[in-house]
Amino acid sequence: MKTRITELLGIRYPIIQGGMQWVGRAELAAAVSNAGGLGILTALTQPTPEDLAKEIARCRDMTDKPFGVNITIMPSLRPIAHDEYARAAMESGVRIIETAGRSPEALMPIFNEVGAKVIHKCTSVRHSLKAEKIGCAAVSVDGFECAGHPGEDDIPNLILLPRAADALTIPIIASGGIGDGRGLAAALILGADGVNMGTRFMATKEAPIHENVKNRLVEANELDTIHLYRTLKNTSRYFRNSIAEQARQIEQEKGAALNIADIAPLVNGQRGRKVYEDGDMEAGVWTAGLAASLIKDIPSCAELLDRMVAEARDIMRSRAKLILDEVA
Amino acid sequence: MKTRITELLGIRYPIIQGGMQWVGRAELAAAVSNAGGLGILTALTQPTPEDLAKEIARCRDMTDKPFGVNITIMPSLRPIAHDEYARAAMESGVRIIETAGRSPEALMPIFNEVGAKVIHKCTSVRHSLKAEKIGCAAVSVDGFECAGHPGEDDIPNLILLPRAADALTIPIIASGGIGDGRGLAAALILGADGVNMGTRFMATKEAPIHENVKNRLVEANELDTIHLYRTLKNTSRYFRNSIAEQARQIEQEKGAALNIADIAPLVNGQRGRKVYEDGDMEAGVWTAGLAASLIKDIPSCAELLDRMVAEARDIMRSRAKLILDEVA
Repeated sequence: MKTRITELLGIRYPIIQGGMQWVGRAELAAAVSNAGGLGILTALTQPTPEDLAKEIARCRDMTDKPFGVNITIMPSLRPIAHDEYARAAMESGVRIIETAGRSPEALMPIFNEVGAKVIHKCTSVRHSLKAEKIGCAAVSVDGFECAGHPGEDDIPNLILLPRAADALTIPIIASGGIGDGRGLAAALILGADGVNMGTRFMATKEAPIHENVKNRLVEANELDTIHLYRTLKNTSRYFRNSIAEQARQIEQEKGAALNIADIAPLVNGQRGRKVYEDGDMEAGVWTAGLAASLIKDIPSCAELLDRMVAEARDIMRSRAKLILDEVA
Repeated sequence: MKTRITELLGIRYPIIQGGMQWVGRAELAAAVSNAGGLGILTALTQPTPEDLAKEIARCRDMTDKPFGVNITIMPSLRPIAHDEYARAAMESGVRIIETAGRSPEALMPIFNEVGAKVIHKCTSVRHSLKAEKIGCAAVSVDGFECAGHPGEDDIPNLILLPRAADALTIPIIASGGIGDGRGLAAALILGADGVNMGTRFMATKEAPIHENVKNRLVEANELDTIHLYRTLKNTSRYFRNSIAEQARQIEQEKGAALNIADIAPLVNGQRGRKVYEDGDMEAGVWTAGLAASLIKDIPSCAELLDRMVAEARDIMRSRAKLILDEVA
């Protein structure tokens, strides 16, 4: 399979494993890259830039294929030295960066100095145009379906992808709501050059998270996610467990008067980490996108990618036959 | 183009013009059917069942192709005799019915008596399964993207279509967010057998509505719609004009204490009718789906359908080439 994204990144399949806090470690990133996709380490899962350098070295021991590093730039109580993580990645020889959250503009000189390619995650056409303007090599277009932060516009990928494709000249990666070969083929039809998946990769053999999380994703349906922080204009999609329901309840009671302090103890990141690491499914909130509803098993990354590509090809062949039938 | 929907309905292209209050009149339905799709008259746009019978006769004068009638079953202050509209349609020889809103179960004997085919619009997998069970011939799956009532689950078609396709055996029509050949091809890839469009058909030469509405749709982008009635659990997507913004403001101020009476004067249907008929764009609220953002012109229905099908075929051919490329 050959698209502008496989060419840009030097990978076999146009399938990227997006950055995921507590999940994007060397085991998963290496497995995805070895399977022909692009694995991505999540910088802020590592406590310091030095730890990120070690994780990059560990990943390189497991794969000789390209992989990337995600740097998420979000407002935070404790200041985070994003530039030091960026330099650590560059000094370790990484040449593909995924940025998310705020604009990566301030970090671009660090990436440009060594010719690294930057993929910025955007939830809107206007942010995508900005990313193109500041020199990003591609954008990952994050639809309403996505886990974590979809922005406040609520535009699903059926609309956002063709709108972005019409507006941009750089390659586009569809992110949010992709979980199988149908989603891959549909994204390419809608104007994307590749897909980004997070939730689907959590339910793989190599994902370094507790089995309970993977099994819960297999059981999930499309009603099992929930949005929090809408009134704070910082909407985020989580798996619908008891803690997320409690936080939502508080949000609804407080309405426009909600303060982050009202729910901070519930949604604390360290509590969420316990879900991933200890498998205590009600320890805290954890992110999952709507693609959870498409997950039916826990394959290896290689099995998953080979199957998705085969499925996309099968559907394309059978649907092309219907669509191209000029007789009727 | 040949799918289960073209076979079921006896039409050339798997493209249906969904029911639209004040818009679904004979001029539009006949134009869509003549263009190879399925036009649909909206029963409740007519003041009485007798007027519906006259409108059906008028439509039959304009086309010898199949067309359908939409019967929307919603809670209403003034009781509506849905069964009388249903009988009027059957007595006028209509054999394709689109139902929307509540389950059409009570009306099924009227349709079954003459062997009419019922397409029920559903916003969830569970409602689709119910529709299949009570004998509907197909379901129109209404994603989060749609105009009017998307339900309260907020599931976009990128997820809802494959989920419905996995669960159902009857044919599926993708509704919501479809505006061009990319959407048509993507819907078929995701498991649909055809598409339903409302908003896109409003911006056609034959749509019997004021030019101002059509021009506003051409200018619209993906941020130009707005949800109302969320707190009443009766969410509806409208075009974002000053009246919709006012209603939204009241909703946000009242929060969970909102009563329909608080906004009823603003969202009154007769005020909306003035938008369509007089082109007074701030007279009231009017429905439009996210597909508004994909509208760039005001073609005839024949031009629109021929172009969509040609575009779907072109994309399918070019993308199939990429996807089926086994070399890379």
